[in-house]
Amino acid sequence: MDIATLIGIVAAFLLVGVAIVTGQGISFFFSVPSVLIVFGGTIGSTLVNFPLSEVLAVINVAKNAFMTKEVSSYDAIDQLVDIAEKARREGILAIERELDDVQDSFMKLGIQYAVDGTEPETIRSIMESELTGMEERHRQGKRIFEAMGMYSPAFGMVGTLIGLIQMLASLDDPSKIGQGMATALVTTLYGSLAANILFLPLAGKLEYRSREEARRKELIIEGILSIQSGDNPRIVREKLKTFLPPIERGYGGGGGDEL
Amino acid sequence: MDIATLIGIVAAFLLVGVAIVTGQGISFFFSVPSVLIVFGGTIGSTLVNFPLSEVLAVINVAKNAFMTKEVSSYDAIDQLVDIAEKARREGILAIERELDDVQDSFMKLGIQYAVDGTEPETIRSIMESELTGMEERHRQGKRIFEAMGMYSPAFGMVGTLIGLIQMLASLDDPSKIGQGMATALVTTLYGSLAANILFLPLAGKLEYRSREEARRKELIIEGILSIQSGDNPRIVREKLKTFLPPIERGYGGGGGDEL
Amino acid sequence: MDIATLIGIVAAFLLVGVAIVTGQGISFFFSVPSVLIVFGGTIGSTLVNFPLSEVLAVINVAKNAFMTKEVSSYDAIDQLVDIAEKARREGILAIERELDDVQDSFMKLGIQYAVDGTEPETIRSIMESELTGMEERHRQGKRIFEAMGMYSPAFGMVGTLIGLIQMLASLDDPSKIGQGMATALVTTLYGSLAANILFLPLAGKLEYRSREEARRKELIIEGILSIQSGDNPRIVREKLKTFLPPIERGYGGGGGDEL
Amino acid sequence: MDIATLIGIVAAFLLVGVAIVTGQGISFFFSVPSVLIVFGGTIGSTLVNFPLSEVLAVINVAKNAFMTKEVSSYDAIDQLVDIAEKARREGILAIERELDDVQDSFMKLGIQYAVDGTEPETIRSIMESELTGMEERHRQGKRIFEAMGMYSPAFGMVGTLIGLIQMLASLDDPSKIGQGMATALVTTLYGSLAANILFLPLAGKLEYRSREEARRKELIIEGILSIQSGDNPRIVREKLKTFLPPIERGYGGGGGDEL
Amino acid sequence: MDIATLIGIVAAFLLVGVAIVTGQGISFFFSVPSVLIVFGGTIGSTLVNFPLSEVLAVINVAKNAFMTKEVSSYDAIDQLVDIAEKARREGILAIERELDDVQDSFMKLGIQYAVDGTEPETIRSIMESELTGMEERHRQGKRIFEAMGMYSPAFGMVGTLIGLIQMLASLDDPSKIGQGMATALVTTLYGSLAANILFLPLAGKLEYRSREEARRKELIIEGILSIQSGDNPRIVREKLKTFLPPIERGYGGGGGDEL
Repeated sequence: MDIATLIGIVAAFLLVGVAIVTGQGISFFFSVPSVLIVFGGTIGSTLVNFPLSEVLAVINVAKNAFMTKEVSSYDAIDQLVDIAEKARREGILAIERELDDVQDSFMKLGIQYAVDGTEPETIRSIMESELTGMEERHRQGKRIFEAMGMYSPAFGMVGTLIGLIQMLASLDDPSKIGQGMATALVTTLYGSLAANILFLPLAGKLEYRSREEARRKELIIEGILSIQSGDNPRIVREKLKTFLPPIERGYGGGGGDEL
Repeated sequence: MDIATLIGIVAAFLLVGVAIVTGQGISFFFSVPSVLIVFGGTIGSTLVNFPLSEVLAVINVAKNAFMTKEVSSYDAIDQLVDIAEKARREGILAIERELDDVQDSFMKLGIQYAVDGTEPETIRSIMESELTGMEERHRQGKRIFEAMGMYSPAFGMVGTLIGLIQMLASLDDPSKIGQGMATALVTTLYGSLAANILFLPLAGKLEYRSREEARRKELIIEGILSIQSGDNPRIVREKLKTFLPPIERGYGGGGGDEL
Repeated sequence: MDIATLIGIVAAFLLVGVAIVTGQGISFFFSVPSVLIVFGGTIGSTLVNFPLSEVLAVINVAKNAFMTKEVSSYDAIDQLVDIAEKARREGILAIERELDDVQDSFMKLGIQYAVDGTEPETIRSIMESELTGMEERHRQGKRIFEAMGMYSPAFGMVGTLIGLIQMLASLDDPSKIGQGMATALVTTLYGSLAANILFLPLAGKLEYRSREEARRKELIIEGILSIQSGDNPRIVREKLKTFLPPIERGYGGGGGDEL
Repeated sequence: MDIATLIGIVAAFLLVGVAIVTGQGISFFFSVPSVLIVFGGTIGSTLVNFPLSEVLAVINVAKNAFMTKEVSSYDAIDQLVDIAEKARREGILAIERELDDVQDSFMKLGIQYAVDGTEPETIRSIMESELTGMEERHRQGKRIFEAMGMYSPAFGMVGTLIGLIQMLASLDDPSKIGQGMATALVTTLYGSLAANILFLPLAGKLEYRSREEARRKELIIEGILSIQSGDNPRIVREKLKTFLPPIERGYGGGGGDEL
Repeated sequence: MDIATLIGIVAAFLLVGVAIVTGQGISFFFSVPSVLIVFGGTIGSTLVNFPLSEVLAVINVAKNAFMTKEVSSYDAIDQLVDIAEKARREGILAIERELDDVQDSFMKLGIQYAVDGTEPETIRSIMESELTGMEERHRQGKRIFEAMGMYSPAFGMVGTLIGLIQMLASLDDPSKIGQGMATALVTTLYGSLAANILFLPLAGKLEYRSREEARRKELIIEGILSIQSGDNPRIVREKLKTFLPPIERGYGGGGGDEL
C-alpha cells in the first residue's frame, strides 16, 4: 500500500475543503454542470485521444499508484540466490520444483525457460521483450493521465467561458454579476484541482513505479542468466547487488553519501 | 470503426451543449464571425505552415482516427502461419496462389518479393523503407493536427481581442458592455473547443494508430522473412507472438500483471 | 509558386479584416505606435538574438516558403537515369557533355566530381557536407522565424501594458477608459497576428521545405554514386524510387493506403 | 558553504519584504489559509507524485544546494598523484596504508578495489555504476523540486479562485470587493514566490552540483585506473588535468579566453 | 564589434521609450521599487540557481554577444595554409618560429603540440577536450541568461501582485484605483522588457557564437592534424574549406542557392 498517494490526495483536498468551509458561500462551490463539463469533457477528449480499451485499462494501471510491490528487489535477490544455491547443489533441473514457491510471474517465466534449457540469448531476448512490453504499457498509462491533466484545465476554462457569456448576456440585474462570476469560476477551480491533485501527480507516480519495476525486472533477467550459466551463488549476489542503489548495499555507503 | 473517437467527440460537445442550453442567452453562443475567424484563420495559418497537398491529405489521414483496422495483429499472425505451413508443405513458390486471399497490401508485397526469390536483406530493406515512409506520413498528419490545435486557440484570442476593441471603442452605452463582452468571449470558446475536442485529441489518436500499425507491419516483415528462410510454422508463430503484448499471448499473463 | 503560403496569409488577414470592417470603431484598429512597438521591438530583439548577416539572409530564405521547386524528385530521378544510360553506353567521361543540361547546381557538382574520377567515399563526404550545410542554414532560418514568433506577442503585451498604464494614470475622465483600453489592446492583437499568421507558420513551412529538399539531395547523392559505380540504369531507377513515398511509386499503392 | 544560495534566497525575500513593508496594507500579506493551500497542496500533490521515502530524502538532498564540497577537483588530483607516486615507489599494495588519509568514500572504494587486484574492467564498471546511481538519485531530487515548482503556482491560483468565488458570492457590500480581492491574490503571490525563489532555483542548483560531482567522480575513476596500470605520476596528473576547465589548468588559458 | 546586438537593444528600448514619452503619465513609468523587485529578485533567484562564480563569469561571457571575433574562419584557413607551406618546405620543426605570429591561443596550443611531436590521437583528444570544455562553459552562460529570462517576468508578476494587493487593500478612495493599477503594472512591464530585450536574446546570441566558435575550433584541429601528417598545402585548404558554408566557398555557389 503506497500510503503517500492516498495521504497526498486526501490532504490536498482536505486543505482546499477547509479553506472553502471556513469562508462564505459554500453552496457556490458545488455545481453539477461544472462537474459535467470538466469530467465529461476530459473523458470525451481522452476517448478521442486514445482507444477505448486503453482508457479502460488505465483504471487498472492507476491502482499501481496506490500500491507498493510486496516483492521488493531485496526479496528478489534473496530468492534468486536461494535458487542459485539449489541449482549449484542439485543441478539446474532440480529448481523446477521451486517454481511453486515463486510468486513473481516474471521470475517464474524465466526459471521455466532456464529449466527447459533454452539458449541464454533467447531467454534474454524474450524476457527483455516482456520488459519492453511492460514499459510501453506503463508509458501508455502515463500518457493518458498526462492528457487528462492537459484537458481538464482546458475544460475548466471552457466552463468558465460559458458561465461568463451567460452571465454577461443577461446583465440586466447588476446585483447578480458577482454570483454569476462565482459560478463561472468554479469550473476553472474543478479543472485545476483535478489536474494538479489527481492526473498530473498520478502520471508522475506511474512513471516512478515503472522505472522501479523495470530495474527489478532487469535484475531478475541477470539473475536467471547467471543461475543458468552455473555461477557461484556468491557471484550471483554480487552481480545483482549492483542493481541496488549504493546506500542500500553493504559497502558502508561507499561513495553514495556525498550529495 | 473506432467508436471511442465518435463517442468522445459527441459526448464532449453534447455536455458543453447541455450546459449552454440550460442557461440563459443561448443566442449569444452562435456567431458566424467567430466561426470565420477561428476556422478560417486556423486553416489559413495551416496552409502557410504546410503545403496544400499535405493539408488536403490530412482529411484522408483523419478518417483513420475513426476506424479500427479490420486486419488485427492476431489475424496477421494466423495468416502468416497458414502461409508458412503451405510453404513448408509445397515449397515457397506454391504460396503465390495464396496471394489473392491476402487483403493486406503490405503483406502481399512481401509475399511477392519472397516468391520472386529476392534476397532477404533486400526484402527487409525495401519493406522497412515502406514502413518508415508510412510513419513519416503519419507523423506529418499528426504535425498538422498539432499545428491546428495551436493556431485555433490563438485565433480564438484574436477574435476576442477584436470584439473587445470594438466594444470598448463604442462604450457610449454602458448597458451594452455585457453583451459586447459576451460576443467577444464566444470566439475564445470556439478556439478552445476546437483545439481540445478535435485537433489535439485527433493528433493523439493518429500517433497511437501509427504506433499500432508500425508494430503490425514489423510483425509482417519478420513473418515473411521467417517463411522465406523455411522456418517451421510453429517457430514462425513463436517468433511473431513476441510482437503481441504479453497479456494477449498464451503464457497465462506471464509477467504482465504487475503494473 | 507555393500558392498555399500566399493564399493562407491573404485569407487569414482577410477574414480578420472583414471581422473588423463589419464592426464598429474601425479607426481604433490602426495604430502607428503599436506597429512600431511590435515590429520594431521584434526586429530589435531578433538582432540581439542573431547576427545581422543571418537576419538579413532570412529574407532570402523566406522566399522559399512562397516557392515550390521546379525540379521535383521525379525529374531528378528521370535525369539521373538518363545520365546513367549515357554513362553506360559511352563511358563515364561522356556525361561531362550533359553538364550544361543540368539545372540543379547540386547535381552538377556531383557529376563533375564523378567525371573527375574522385573516390566515391570523397564524393559522398563532400556532398553530404554540402547537405549538412544546407540543413544548418535552413535550421537557422527556422530558428529566426521561431524567435520572431516568440518576441512579437511579447512586444504586443509590452505595448498593451504601456497603453494601460498611460490610460490608468489619467483616469480623470472615466468616459475615456474604454477608448484607452481599446487602443492598448490593439498592440496585443498585432503581436498575435504577426506570430500566428506570419512567423510561426513560415517557420513551419521552412522546416517542411528543408526536409523535402534534404530528401531530394540524398536521392541525388545516391544517384551519382550509383552512376559512377556503373550500375545498370534500371537498378539506378529502382534504388532512387525508394526515396519516393510509396503512394508515388509504381507498386499500385503497395502497403501505403492503410493509414 | 555555498553562500550564494543563502544570499540569493534572503536577498529575494528581503526585496519583496521591503516592497511590502513600505506600502500600505501590510496585514493583507499574511494569510494562514493561503499558506495552508499553497504549501499543503504542493506537499500533497508531491506525495501523490513521488513515494514518501523519496520526498523525505529530498530534504537531505536539498542541503547540498547550500554546501560546497570541501574536497575540490584540485585536491582530488593532488591526492591521486600522491598515491600514484607511492604506488610507483613502493608497489600498488603499499597504498593500502594511505586509505585512512582518504576522506572521499568514492576514492577509498576505488583504491580498495585497486589494491585487491580487481580487474580494471570490473573496477570501471562497478565505479561507473556507483556514479550512475548517484546521478539518478540527484536527478530524482531535481525532479521533485521541479514538480514542487509546478504545483505551487497551481495551488496559488487555486487559492485565489477560492477567495474570488467567496468574495463574489457575497457581493452585497461593494466596499469589501477590494479587500476580498486583495486576500484572494495573496495566495497567487505565495505560490509564485515559492516556485521562483525556492523550488525552481534549487532544482537548478542541484543539477549544477550533480554535474560538478559527476565530473569529479569521473576524474577519480580515471585516476584510480591510471594508478593501477602503473602510470608515471606525471602522466596521471596530465590525464586528470583534462577534466578541469582550461582556464583552471596551467596552459596560460590556452584557447579558453575567446568567449 | 557585433553592432547588431547594440543596435537591437538600443532600438527596442528607444521604440518603447518613444511610445512612453509621446503618451501621458510619463512619471508612472519610473519606479524604484519595481526595479528592485524585478532585478533584485531575478539576481537573487539566479544566485540560488547557479554558484556565485558562474554568475560573475556570465558578465565576462556576455561581452561576447557584443563582439565579433577578429580572427574569422577565413583568416584561420589562410594562416593554417601558410603554416602548412612552411612545414612542407622547411620541416615541421620550422613552424615553431611562426608561433609568435599566431594570435589565436587555441591554434598556438595545437601547433606547439604538433612541433613537440605529440601523437595525432593525443593532440586530437586534448584539443577536443578543450573544445568540449569551451562549449560547456558557453552552455552554462546560456543557461544563466535563460534562467534570468524566466525569473524576470515572474518577478514582474510578483511586483504587480504586491502593488495590486496594496491598492485593493486601501480602496477607500476609488479615484486612486487607476493610479494604483498603473504603478502595479509597471513591474510587469519591466520584467517583460528585461526578458525579451536582454536576457532571452542574449542567450540566443551566445548560443550562436558558441556554435560559430566551435566550428572554427574544429577547423583548426583538422588543420593542425593535416599539417602534422605532412599534407600538401592545397589539400589542407580543400579539407578546411568543407567547414565553410557552401555560399562562402569558391564553387560558384554549388548547390547552396536552392533554399
